[in-house]
Amino acid sequence: MLRSILISALIAVASLGAARADDLPSWTDGPVKQAVVDFVTTATTEGSPGWIAPADRIATFDNDGTLWAEQPMYFQAMFVMDRVRALAPDHPEWTTTQPFKAVLDGDMHALAEAGQKGLMELVAATHSGMTADEFEAIVKDWIATARHPKLERPYTSAIYAPMVELLTYLRANGFETWIVSGGGIDFMRPWVESAYGIPPQQVVGSQIAESYQVIDGKPQMVRESGIFFVDDGPGKPVGIHRHIGKRPVLAVGNSDGDYQMLEYVTAAEGPRLGLILHHTDAAREFAYDRESHIGKLDKALTDAPEKGWVVIDMARDWKTVFPPAP
Amino acid sequence: MLRSILISALIAVASLGAARADDLPSWTDGPVKQAVVDFVTTATTEGSPGWIAPADRIATFDNDGTLWAEQPMYFQAMFVMDRVRALAPDHPEWTTTQPFKAVLDGDMHALAEAGQKGLMELVAATHSGMTADEFEAIVKDWIATARHPKLERPYTSAIYAPMVELLTYLRANGFETWIVSGGGIDFMRPWVESAYGIPPQQVVGSQIAESYQVIDGKPQMVRESGIFFVDDGPGKPVGIHRHIGKRPVLAVGNSDGDYQMLEYVTAAEGPRLGLILHHTDAAREFAYDRESHIGKLDKALTDAPEKGWVVIDMARDWKTVFPPAP
Repeated sequence: MLRSILISALIAVASLGAARADDLPSWTDGPVKQAVVDFVTTATTEGSPGWIAPADRIATFDNDGTLWAEQPMYFQAMFVMDRVRALAPDHPEWTTTQPFKAVLDGDMHALAEAGQKGLMELVAATHSGMTADEFEAIVKDWIATARHPKLERPYTSAIYAPMVELLTYLRANGFETWIVSGGGIDFMRPWVESAYGIPPQQVVGSQIAESYQVIDGKPQMVRESGIFFVDDGPGKPVGIHRHIGKRPVLAVGNSDGDYQMLEYVTAAEGPRLGLILHHTDAAREFAYDRESHIGKLDKALTDAPEKGWVVIDMARDWKTVFPPAP
Repeated sequence: MLRSILISALIAVASLGAARADDLPSWTDGPVKQAVVDFVTTATTEGSPGWIAPADRIATFDNDGTLWAEQPMYFQAMFVMDRVRALAPDHPEWTTTQPFKAVLDGDMHALAEAGQKGLMELVAATHSGMTADEFEAIVKDWIATARHPKLERPYTSAIYAPMVELLTYLRANGFETWIVSGGGIDFMRPWVESAYGIPPQQVVGSQIAESYQVIDGKPQMVRESGIFFVDDGPGKPVGIHRHIGKRPVLAVGNSDGDYQMLEYVTAAEGPRLGLILHHTDAAREFAYDRESHIGKLDKALTDAPEKGWVVIDMARDWKTVFPPAP
């Protein structure tokens, strides 16, 4: 017993040294990487003005466009459309009813015309009317088999390798890493632990109504139609407060939907860091910002210098974007 | 560096041995203590049929009547009444308006008559219309100064020493310990970490409406009137699913308000443990169960044998009840 603990201690010392050589190998050396390393180094240096008590080392990350890609549309929208196609044989009326017809016809124009109301109908039809366990199984099956149409790889390989490094680096330095996403909380939980090392209890997201029911003697969570909470824009600080109950010290986002999270986290006493991922890399990923329909980055980019938010330029600051596809 | 790690390892080995001698010294040796120790021992023994993967070692505890006392009324109700008295000078109309008049007159009969609607008015007047930071400061001040009228000690000394031992024992064995309470989440978070070792992000409770606002350039959470979520009865499994996203393996409660949590946690595959604290000790605490107005324990006690829930008889199973008062 003692022997194995001593060996573990020696391995820990060895790997600590290795990690310090470069914790962020996919990041280009330069001011952005330096800002991140400086923040973490001072946060973990007792006695430094930037020191942060371990209990307060909480970092929140947006998901769509921050931890994984979000073009040509949110991946959860891809999931919705795949689910509509899979369920269509049981719903012959969908071939003549919008917004379902638009999905089945691949008619993006008609889909856009259906607007928010149409989207809610699609979410209700694909995300509710089943138990939480059933929905989890559907998501697991989809994430294991679906492939990104343009990047030609599973969605879990359309995550950003430098962000996974950053998450690992933060956790190695005593930070708790959380997802705070406008996406559905139960759409993310089944796969984020293996993709990012983030357990389900550290995911904050949008939620549909749910009820507790005992069905055939088995206690179940049942997913109802109706939205319970929208974790986007000003909803993100609310979601953070509800789930975490303290103000994080580091926030990472990529769009104006993250503005309030960045503001809430960084405009307070003590050491703070706000990071914005700017999608500038048309060659390796997608280039978009102010005019983008998805992931619009306008106000946050404009205000970044005044707010002290550090802008990660993907083309400049990342040596690699995606992990190797399987 | 290596030297200090080796010394830490030796200390860890030494304290492991000491802890194993008896992790639950305030618990009487007998079948209840044995059931708890057996569950934890097999849960942490790889290869045993009761083994639980570390990521699934999640334990949820009710608070009122489970981790701290709840008589003669919920301590949060004591807080509400103290707040009404403190705020009364700014509200002269309260001396003639119910339910405030009942509080100021100490008229429990009139207060009971005001019912649920009256209670909501009191909660709105004392829990909303301020920022989250302001409310946190009010709770911290109250918990540091208020004293239990009958037990004659601070409320944080009206916690159960055997339960604190159990929480510590579980965490030492890789369990994450959560509070799942009908009480207000923001009423608990300011003090549960020092009282129980449970951080704010592992507290699930009832929530009032909140909004994100920038006030005088400072981002704030503002507490609104209106209830957002009631974490009681069938709400407890819902709260667990929203915050944790996986089914715990151990649940501890003391009243019928915990019935669904116990049911949700224990009626599933794999090793499970449900514990019910039965308040049988009039000499050291309070004796109450089936007929109690607060903490009524009827259906859960009746169904415990069939459900396999283990009943902790306070008078029999606990050598001590409270920690020493300061």
